[in-house]
Order: sequence, then C-alpha cells, then structure tokens
Amino acid sequence: MKELINQYKNGLLEDVIPFWSRYSLDKVHGGYLTSLDRKGNVFDTDKYAWPIGRQIWTYSKLYNEVEKKPEWLAIAQSGAEFLVENGMDEDGKFYFSFDQQGNSLKKPSNIYSDCFAALGFSQYYKASRNAKYRTLAREVYDRIEKRWSNPKHIFNKETGIRPMMGMGKLMLDANMALEMEGVLDNDTIISLKSNSIRKLLTHHYDEKVELFFENVAPDGSHPDTVDGRLIVPGHAVESMWMIMDLAAQTNDIKTIQKATDITIKMLSYSWDDQFGGIYYFMDWKNKPMQWKLDWDQKLWWVHNEALIALLKAFHHTRRADVWSWFKKVHTYTWKYFPDPEFGEWYGYLNRRGEVLLDLKGSFKGCYHLPRSLYECWKTLEKIAHDNDKS
Amino acid sequence: MKELINQYKNGLLEDVIPFWSRYSLDKVHGGYLTSLDRKGNVFDTDKYAWPIGRQIWTYSKLYNEVEKKPEWLAIAQSGAEFLVENGMDEDGKFYFSFDQQGNSLKKPSNIYSDCFAALGFSQYYKASRNAKYRTLAREVYDRIEKRWSNPKHIFNKETGIRPMMGMGKLMLDANMALEMEGVLDNDTIISLKSNSIRKLLTHHYDEKVELFFENVAPDGSHPDTVDGRLIVPGHAVESMWMIMDLAAQTNDIKTIQKATDITIKMLSYSWDDQFGGIYYFMDWKNKPMQWKLDWDQKLWWVHNEALIALLKAFHHTRRADVWSWFKKVHTYTWKYFPDPEFGEWYGYLNRRGEVLLDLKGSFKGCYHLPRSLYECWKTLEKIAHDNDKS
Repeated sequence: MKELINQYKNGLLEDVIPFWSRYSLDKVHGGYLTSLDRKGNVFDTDKYAWPIGRQIWTYSKLYNEVEKKPEWLAIAQSGAEFLVENGMDEDGKFYFSFDQQGNSLKKPSNIYSDCFAALGFSQYYKASRNAKYRTLAREVYDRIEKRWSNPKHIFNKETGIRPMMGMGKLMLDANMALEMEGVLDNDTIISLKSNSIRKLLTHHYDEKVELFFENVAPDGSHPDTVDGRLIVPGHAVESMWMIMDLAAQTNDIKTIQKATDITIKMLSYSWDDQFGGIYYFMDWKNKPMQWKLDWDQKLWWVHNEALIALLKAFHHTRRADVWSWFKKVHTYTWKYFPDPEFGEWYGYLNRRGEVLLDLKGSFKGCYHLPRSLYECWKTLEKIAHDNDKS
Repeated sequence: MKELINQYKNGLLEDVIPFWSRYSLDKVHGGYLTSLDRKGNVFDTDKYAWPIGRQIWTYSKLYNEVEKKPEWLAIAQSGAEFLVENGMDEDGKFYFSFDQQGNSLKKPSNIYSDCFAALGFSQYYKASRNAKYRTLAREVYDRIEKRWSNPKHIFNKETGIRPMMGMGKLMLDANMALEMEGVLDNDTIISLKSNSIRKLLTHHYDEKVELFFENVAPDGSHPDTVDGRLIVPGHAVESMWMIMDLAAQTNDIKTIQKATDITIKMLSYSWDDQFGGIYYFMDWKNKPMQWKLDWDQKLWWVHNEALIALLKAFHHTRRADVWSWFKKVHTYTWKYFPDPEFGEWYGYLNRRGEVLLDLKGSFKGCYHLPRSLYECWKTLEKIAHDNDKS
C-alpha cells in the first residue's frame, strides 16, 4: 500500500509538476506555453484559455493542499494575471485562444473557457487571499449562469428543432459546487449541488439500459440520433467521482453507492477486452461512429478520471469488485501512459496502446494528470488509514 | 491493361453505383439517406447538404457521360428537388443538415454546402435540360462569390489578427471552372481557371520547401503555427488533377508537368513506408499534430484522388515514375478499401490498414469513390488508346 501511495505522490511531485514548472512558463509574456513536445520543448507559442485556467487551478491547489511553496504560488499568479489582462472581451466573456503576447485569436465561442477561469480564479483566491480574485471568480460565475441557456450565443449553429441537453454543464456545476465554497454564496452552492446530482443520476444515467448518456432530450429520452446515442465513458466516470465527493459531505451513502455502480457499469461497458484500456467514444446501439474518427483511442484523461472514481468508490464502499477494477485500470494506465525517458505522460495512444502523439502538452495541459495523481494519492492515504484502523 | 480498365469500370457500374441506388434512396421524403452501415442499412436518418449535392452530381454525371439511364436521372432529380424544397434559408444559403423530412437542423455555417449544391445543380441541368437548374446553379454561385470574403459570416470565430488563406476555395474554383461551362459566363470561367491555377501552384505550393500547404498567409508565407504548418496530402493531389484537366484544355504542358511534379513530391512525402498508404494530415516541421487525432489514418478519398492525379499525370507525361507510383497506390487501395462481402468500400482505416469504421455512408457519401472509378476508367481508356497508336 505504501508503495502504491508513493507511486502517485512521487508521480505528481517528482515527475509531472517539475516537468510543467520547468517547461511551461512564459517568463517574458506571462501565462503558460502549453504546446510542449515529448521533451518539453515549446513547439507552438499560441496560448489557450482552457489549459491556462486549469493550470492556475492545479498550482493553486497544490499550494493550498500540499505545501506553501512560493514557487507554486508565483506560477499560479502568472497565469491568473495573464487571464485578467488578456482573457476577456468587452462583455467579460473569455476568448478561446491568444498569441504569445496575449492578443486574442479566437472569439469567445465556448463557455468552458469561462468555467475553467472561474475554477482557477477561485482556487487562486484561496491561495493568494487576494480578494480581487474572489470577486472575479464570482463575476465570471454570474456571467456563466446568465449565458447557459445559449452558451455558444451567436455561434450556436442549431436551428433548435431538436433540443438536447449535454452533461457538460452539470459536471461543471458539480465541480463548481465542490470548488467554490467560500466564493459563491451558500444557496448557490446548495442548488448547484442538488441539481447536478439529480440530473446526472436520473436524466443522464438511464436505469433501464444501465448506461450514462452524454446528451439527452429535455424530457430525458434518447433520440435515435448520433448525439442522442453518444456515450463518453470518461465524462461518465469523471462526473461520478464529483458526485461521490458531494454526497460524502452529507454522508449520503446511497448516492455514493449509486455513483459507484454507475462507475463499474460504465467501465465494464467501455473496456477494450482485446487490447485493454477504455474507449474514448461509443454508440449506445453500437452503430458506426459517424464523426468520431478517434473513438477507439486511449486517452490519458479518461484513465486518470477512472482511477479517481475507482479509488473514491473503494474508499467509501470497500467493495472487492471496485478494488479489482482499480488494479486493472491502474496496471494498464501505468504500463502505457508514462514516459520514463523524458518525463510526464503521453496523452494519446492508439487502440493498441501505442503512442499516437508523443506530445506532453497541447490541450492536454497541466490538469487531469496532476489532479488524478493528487486525488489518488490522498484517497489511497485514507484507504490505508482505514486499513490500519481495522 | 484491359483488365485494369475493367477493374475500375466494373467497380463503378457493378459494385458502387448499384449499392447507392439500392440503399440510399428515400422514396418517401425524397433525397438520400447517406448514413449507411457496412451492409447498406440506414443507421441514421438525418440528411446532410454536402453528400446530397455531391450525389446529385454523381448520378447526373453518369447520366451525361456513361449512359442515359432514366433510373440515374430520377435519382439525381430526387436529390435536386429535396435541396430546392428544403435546402436554403431565406437568404439562399444552404443549411448544413436536415432531419429525414427536410426540416433544417444546422444553420448555414459552411459555404461548401453551397459549392456542392452549385456543382450538383449544374451537372443536373446538363442531364435534365431543365433551365430552372441552370438559373439556380448560377444564383448559388453568385451568392458563394459574394460570401467568400467571410464564408462563415456570423460563425467566423477568428478575431482577424492572423489572417490565413485556405486552399479550399481555390480547389472549388478549379472544380467549378471545370464543371460549370455553359452555366456560368465565359469570363467567369476564365477568371476562375487562371486565378485558381496561379494561386494553387505559386502560393500554396512552395518551390523552396517542395511542399503544398493547406493554408498560407495572404503574402504566401508560412506562419509557424498549427494552421500554417498543416499539410493535407489528399487536398494537394485532388487539386493537382483539376489543374491538369484545366491545363489540358489549352495544351499547357508546362503546367501539367508542374502539377505532375507536385503530385509525385506530395505522395513521396506522405507515403507511410512502414504500413503503406497515404497519411491524412501532416505537419511541415514534423511537430506533433495538436488537434488532428486522426492524422495517421488512411482515408478512402485521399487514395481515390491520388489515383486520379497519377493516371491523368501519366496520360499526359508518360513518365515511368508516375506509372510506378500509380501501381503502388493502386495495389494498396484495392487491397485494403473494397469490401467484397457486402459491396462498396470501407472509408476509414487505421494506420495499419485495418478497418476503423465499417460504415459505407455518412459524410463519405456517393462522390469521391465513384468519381475516382469513373475518372480512372476513362483515363485508362485514353492511355490504352495511346498505347495502341504507338
């Protein structure tokens, strides 16, 4: 057990974080250069709002939870200041991308940029205690809420005759409910929490077919369309561990059990029995993936999120089947993703587990992997602690 | 040689066209159901403007050039009438997609829908001699020209600080110059022709690095960005055979030689020496493909277009290296893409040449493959004719 704990802890503190601290900082223009190749060289200098907001979050979180290292706070600060200076258009919407100097390249067409900025600012406020970032995080959150009815605003290409509800907003609600206590008011937190748990577990998870759907019709039904049949196993398990964390706040073991069941069902459904690993996209009726040419690839974040969900589920339930699933995903993940030669992990493997893209950065950024290593490390410590007690 | 001619001719007339005639017709609502699985079953009933415009073109072309089969004309008519009834918004812009009944699902955000409608209407006018479609084709063309400065209109997400010119517009210009004689006036045809040849050969092909670039800056330079470094071998060879056809109209052998050189250089550059086949996307500086997770896949259309370019190049130049490249691409293509069990061809193979998606339709549609079989058949006949003379 101690070895397992150290594997995650050292992976975080001796491999992944040093890689990003060493290679991703733009000491001239601020913010982060996230297009890093296998060795950490910057292969492209454009900057993207998603990975910047996420990296602010990661370094702030480490500062808040692991160690008060001034270096980590300074790295978080650099990203936060870059986003404040360059991130928003005149309405406070976050651009999608920037050149190295911070000039905006792509207009705000994607509200997730705003969500990751809110999460980054919120965690950075807790690290810096600079009230400006608390205000900013709140303001960004308020604008997100106002925009959710049509998050792509003018860029929405749908005519509206077939409305669908994605799970993304609900997962972000769960994430913000976990992260933004002390920043948002309590009523907001409570409503984000109850609404996201309820809809994720009852609308997006279908008890009858025992699958978690990425998109559902407003009445919860599954139109027999490409979007309506789409299964994204990584999103399913990512949202399940957030639900477990929220439910644990009130010792709601019934909800934790349900999220555990869904995690196991989704992993059984999406595991590649031939080559191992979790598929990226699937179709409920096993119809051809019309648009997703990358459906059979094995992505780092899917496996990172599955590991978190499995360990949290085991911590709460002590179910043997959950532990054996953890061992299975753990073994696959550590066999195929890490790059012992140049550090950090590969992000994109083909179905066979061979490296498809050997980059370390790009949209991959500094987020899912360090978050997973951190959450697994801490959850394994709790499991070990419980073992000692019994 | 006769065997080779029959391979392409029979592939077209005894395999591919019967498959689409049998499975893709919507006899209730008109138009085509292009989401066909391996066996030809409709797995999704949504309709898309691109493949409808393209299938109108294919059946009209066969009617005009191969045989005056009433069945082919009726199939073309069904698609043309569907697009006239349902295809356009109040400004005459083509929607991207529709439900089976023809209600629009996605707004006009992509001007290529309009281009394929113009090409389809134009060829269908020549088949039906119904002047309404000549007028329509002209009107659609006029609107395309007006929109080209900002083809995505409100859906354009670029802030404009880094303008880039794609090759797509120029290839479509070349295509329309070849296809729309008798529909557009002569001055327009001449200007489309000279402009597209010049820019494709001098802006997008870079003599110094000997590569054809998908996007260039307005001054023809190559910004060191993801877009600026992008190489799409399939588009390069597709545009080269169109240039050969245009140049052949005036016996411009110098231009044909140059297009031949570019074809061979691009195939040498993009051939997968390990597993065979032509890569889908590449990066000029061999940097990681940040967004294109499908970069190493082998797509049917890339190989279809390469075969056309190689045969036309050989027909005009009789170069031995061109013929040996044709044999190489021909052998790979016929080994991996056709599905002898259920007919038609697979569209999407992984790097190893294994079937990634076993569908026959989707955006694949009834276009690149029948066009390639037709063009190769006819060009091989010309080559055989020249052989007989010598």
